[in-house]
Amino acid sequence: KINSARLWDAINETAKFGGTPKGGVRRLTLGAEDKQVRDWFRKACEDAGLEVKIDALGSMFALRKGRDMSKAPIGVGSHLDTQPTGGKFDGILGVLGALEMVRTLDDAGIETETPICIANWTNEEGSRFAPAMMASAAYAGDFTVDDILSRKDIDGVTVGEALDSIGYRGDVAVGTQKFSGFVELHIEQGPVLEAEGKTIGVVDTGQGVLWFDGKITGFESHAGTTPMHLRKDALGTLAEIVLATERVVTEIGALGTIGEAVIASPSRNVIPGEIAFTMDMRSADAGKLDAIEKGVREAITAIAAKRKVEVSFDKVWHKPPTHFNKDFVNAVENAATELGYSHRRITSGAGHDACNLNNVMPTAMVFIPSKDGISHNELESSTQDDCAAGANVLMHTVLALAGV
Amino acid sequence: KINSARLWDAINETAKFGGTPKGGVRRLTLGAEDKQVRDWFRKACEDAGLEVKIDALGSMFALRKGRDMSKAPIGVGSHLDTQPTGGKFDGILGVLGALEMVRTLDDAGIETETPICIANWTNEEGSRFAPAMMASAAYAGDFTVDDILSRKDIDGVTVGEALDSIGYRGDVAVGTQKFSGFVELHIEQGPVLEAEGKTIGVVDTGQGVLWFDGKITGFESHAGTTPMHLRKDALGTLAEIVLATERVVTEIGALGTIGEAVIASPSRNVIPGEIAFTMDMRSADAGKLDAIEKGVREAITAIAAKRKVEVSFDKVWHKPPTHFNKDFVNAVENAATELGYSHRRITSGAGHDACNLNNVMPTAMVFIPSKDGISHNELESSTQDDCAAGANVLMHTVLALAGV
Ligand SMILES: NC(=O)NCCC(=O)O
Ligand SMILES: NC(=O)NCCC(=O)O
Repeated sequence: KINSARLWDAINETAKFGGTPKGGVRRLTLGAEDKQVRDWFRKACEDAGLEVKIDALGSMFALRKGRDMSKAPIGVGSHLDTQPTGGKFDGILGVLGALEMVRTLDDAGIETETPICIANWTNEEGSRFAPAMMASAAYAGDFTVDDILSRKDIDGVTVGEALDSIGYRGDVAVGTQKFSGFVELHIEQGPVLEAEGKTIGVVDTGQGVLWFDGKITGFESHAGTTPMHLRKDALGTLAEIVLATERVVTEIGALGTIGEAVIASPSRNVIPGEIAFTMDMRSADAGKLDAIEKGVREAITAIAAKRKVEVSFDKVWHKPPTHFNKDFVNAVENAATELGYSHRRITSGAGHDACNLNNVMPTAMVFIPSKDGISHNELESSTQDDCAAGANVLMHTVLALAGV
Repeated sequence: KINSARLWDAINETAKFGGTPKGGVRRLTLGAEDKQVRDWFRKACEDAGLEVKIDALGSMFALRKGRDMSKAPIGVGSHLDTQPTGGKFDGILGVLGALEMVRTLDDAGIETETPICIANWTNEEGSRFAPAMMASAAYAGDFTVDDILSRKDIDGVTVGEALDSIGYRGDVAVGTQKFSGFVELHIEQGPVLEAEGKTIGVVDTGQGVLWFDGKITGFESHAGTTPMHLRKDALGTLAEIVLATERVVTEIGALGTIGEAVIASPSRNVIPGEIAFTMDMRSADAGKLDAIEKGVREAITAIAAKRKVEVSFDKVWHKPPTHFNKDFVNAVENAATELGYSHRRITSGAGHDACNLNNVMPTAMVFIPSKDGISHNELESSTQDDCAAGANVLMHTVLALAGV
């Protein structure tokens, strides 16, 4: 079994990189705090005797040798970046759980047949740069590296510039670090495991995700002189789109979220003339994803016509639902059973780097409970025992796959 | 008659202070561009032989002597600040029209019995600091000077600091520059005069205004893992408030606008947890103003309860409807008639410094048409002929009031 106290210490120690007064973490990808946690992680890996490499998108790979170095390593890990107001478990648990596994194997003098490689994938969160799970998507060939390097944040800084600014544009070509498979430990970020009193989620499915960039162009005018029926109010338009989206996704049984909406040149006594917004749609069922996109597009067209405004609505990311590799999912389930943890099969609501990697290698995930299902919030929390249980399942899955 | 070409040149020359590529003006009160136009105005007044004084809130007063210096001057003027995406007529026409009047009187060697004083009132627009018509309100005793000096913009800069930063915190105590009355020339900013083919609006009424600061506190959570029925979505809440406001004000026959709405820490895959917003309500009928406030408050309470979120909604400004001084209104009407301009009585949809001044001295306003009723927009426009007509009515009104 892994060292529960050492894992817990590492979680609390790294939470200071970008730590917020409310006990959360703000560590946007490729920012100053991300550099701090990356430097910490690199040193921790080197102290554990691992060789650390960085690829052209800043993803970090720390190799623990195996007896048969002709075999591609089993990959483990997750991501170190967070949401603007995120918690101290989302992502980093998977990286630190992998590090703790390596430390435990070292302590016990256990060598594996297949090497092991811990990964930290750049920009899993997708807050600063779209899409989420950016670097693993490029690794899996969904986007070209040049495309990703040119993506811009809200201040116009590109991924390439951000990588250079923190010194994490590496020399390993994206995709050349090979794996024979990948196992990612993560918090559930939803309420299911806690509600059912299960310690381990054996993730067999991941929801599909659609992301959109929208823009409403109405007409700025004076709040005191423009009659209600002559207005082209961009915010009134957005309001109808928000409520129509709630209606469409609820009817179809899926999810839809407008997370960002920015009025251009806002003023108290000016009717908003222009609003940029984003939308996130999810379902584990590809048919439902299609249906909500269709329903929301129809609603937007009708609202725009009624209000005599222009609305653009462009899909910027389409990640189909994921069905994880059967053998790897079974390996996670067997490890949970052997260790005596209560467990169940589960669908991931969130997207994960594992969802991208599953397209190019056998992949599976281990979930542990999230308190009250809260995530992407500074109050996100999991217990020390559950973190340790997750790391134990990760380790025993990897030992089964890598061979002792 | 005034010199139409000289007035038009002055309008176009000053439009370069904060001029935007789309032909509008961005000259937020007490910013760098406001300093530029203030410096220009001060020099133009001094060149015309006027004595310029600045009060403790940065309002500027330029005095033209009369035969009887024991009499308080007739005030004329308006404001030099603009909206973030404003036009080149709103406010400045009233100041430049007054300047053109003085230049014309000088050219014609006309002396008045009562002195004349051109005013530029600080922060009429209310975009950077609330409330609008800030300095004239303090002049009229609606707010204390200390209160106003401590108001903050979105970056936390106070009015006092902003005054110092552009060197316009003057030594005249607020309220000590006396006037025997005030006449303000302004564009209509609405569609009425143009629609009816009238050149001059004789303003007898001004709408009342209510301003509110609102804040919605829901709960940030993950867009992919939080079921629709468990969300506390601050943007969904705002959407319902926006549409309820449209419904309430339309039923009652008044105006309501949400001009600003900012999501705290926005991210594509996070359900908005907190939104700050503002609201502007208007009616010329005090009873309707009360009714829409009541209706919107009831709607907000119901929406907050249904969505299980908190909403605060605080009134930060209450300006009752204005009924301008009968004698001054008649003086404007007589001048328009004598000059042969088509005219009608009109209600001002916008607030004006004149509305505040009317509480402490006889006051009236002259309107000219706005193209397509557009204002608080870079496309705001009026013709050279209409600007000249307005300045002529202003001059002849003042001559009648000040005595030749
Ligand atoms: N795990 C996680 O929260 N990933 C962010 C991408 C997403 O929105 O699902
Ligand atoms: N004239 C004008 O637009 N004033 C700004 C204050 C208001 O919102 O009415």
